[in-house]
Amino acid sequence: MVAASHSNDNQEKTKLIIEAAQKRFGVYGLMKTTMREIATDLNMSKGLLYYYFPDKEHLYKAVVEKEQNEFLEILKDKIEKNPDPEENLKEYVNLRMSYFKSLLNLNRLSFDSSEEIKSIMSDVWIEFRNKEIAIIKKVLKKGIDLESFNISKVDESAILFVDLLKGLRNMEINKKRIFFIDEIEYDLLSKKSNDFVEIFIKGLKYR
Amino acid sequence: MVAASHSNDNQEKTKLIIEAAQKRFGVYGLMKTTMREIATDLNMSKGLLYYYFPDKEHLYKAVVEKEQNEFLEILKDKIEKNPDPEENLKEYVNLRMSYFKSLLNLNRLSFDSSEEIKSIMSDVWIEFRNKEIAIIKKVLKKGIDLESFNISKVDESAILFVDLLKGLRNMEINKKRIFFIDEIEYDLLSKKSNDFVEIFIKGLKYR
Repeated sequence: MVAASHSNDNQEKTKLIIEAAQKRFGVYGLMKTTMREIATDLNMSKGLLYYYFPDKEHLYKAVVEKEQNEFLEILKDKIEKNPDPEENLKEYVNLRMSYFKSLLNLNRLSFDSSEEIKSIMSDVWIEFRNKEIAIIKKVLKKGIDLESFNISKVDESAILFVDLLKGLRNMEINKKRIFFIDEIEYDLLSKKSNDFVEIFIKGLKYR
Repeated sequence: MVAASHSNDNQEKTKLIIEAAQKRFGVYGLMKTTMREIATDLNMSKGLLYYYFPDKEHLYKAVVEKEQNEFLEILKDKIEKNPDPEENLKEYVNLRMSYFKSLLNLNRLSFDSSEEIKSIMSDVWIEFRNKEIAIIKKVLKKGIDLESFNISKVDESAILFVDLLKGLRNMEINKKRIFFIDEIEYDLLSKKSNDFVEIFIKGLKYR
């Protein structure tokens, strides 16, 4: 009983730490945030913070995973509530753009200094991409069942859709050496992504 | 008369140097090729080579420009000879993939060490992208005139088409820290690009 309650305490503490880190990273980015600042925000000693997370990078990873899961939950919920597969694809594009923006805020790190974090994050991103593809695949299948999409290779089409949008986003951040885009660039990228999804949907509908 | 002939000599020499550099870069890449080797290939002193090109980076730039112009000439020629705008888009995708491959061979440099060359090449790439977009725009217009494409924003669609393909290519090389892809990755990327152009064309045709 005591052990269980202790474990619940641990879970609650972990949750609070991740939330505090999320706020700090969201405003100052990964590089400009220190473990000391996060500990101070929580009225916690630095030593205790390190008991929960071995370093800043693993805390960052936990924050990204939290945001990924939130994004996936909202997306699934929206898709379940809306029976129209075309609108589902558009919802995905817009929701994904918002998530991209929040992620850039979380990050704000230069490409050069990101080798360590890239290696820590690699699995997280692969898993996330697979989950995204699985959701899009379900939408495409729904479109086939409703006879509104004409697709021969569902897997390939889902991967292609996710990757084409990812390619557009990457191009915007690759232009510079920092993970940050301003409002104008964000709006332009949103417009481009929406133009893309319009043509892609028509392409799927064409008989 | 003597001056003119001297200038012709210069042009001829420049052409020979670029051709020799193209071969070296194509086999060993930019980083592993030295100006000394290129001079030796030409039975030329290193000093004389530097009279024509101030450094290896500017010689590399001249080689890339040569290949870009060759690509654009072949593309224009193919498009002029084939009246079908759909096939023109497919021709572009395949030709662009081959050019991408030759460019990777030419380069083979790691991302980290490419700041200087990136800054030298920046204008060259912007100009090339604009030329590509102009050609695709012409193809889309042809498709509209033939009433085979249904496009409201020709400029935006041309840019989107070129950028989506660029995004796919970038993603493949961004996975690693080196400008090189093997045959399997190249075939996968070709397949993806071809799948993309199929859907995109259907999207343009949809009424």
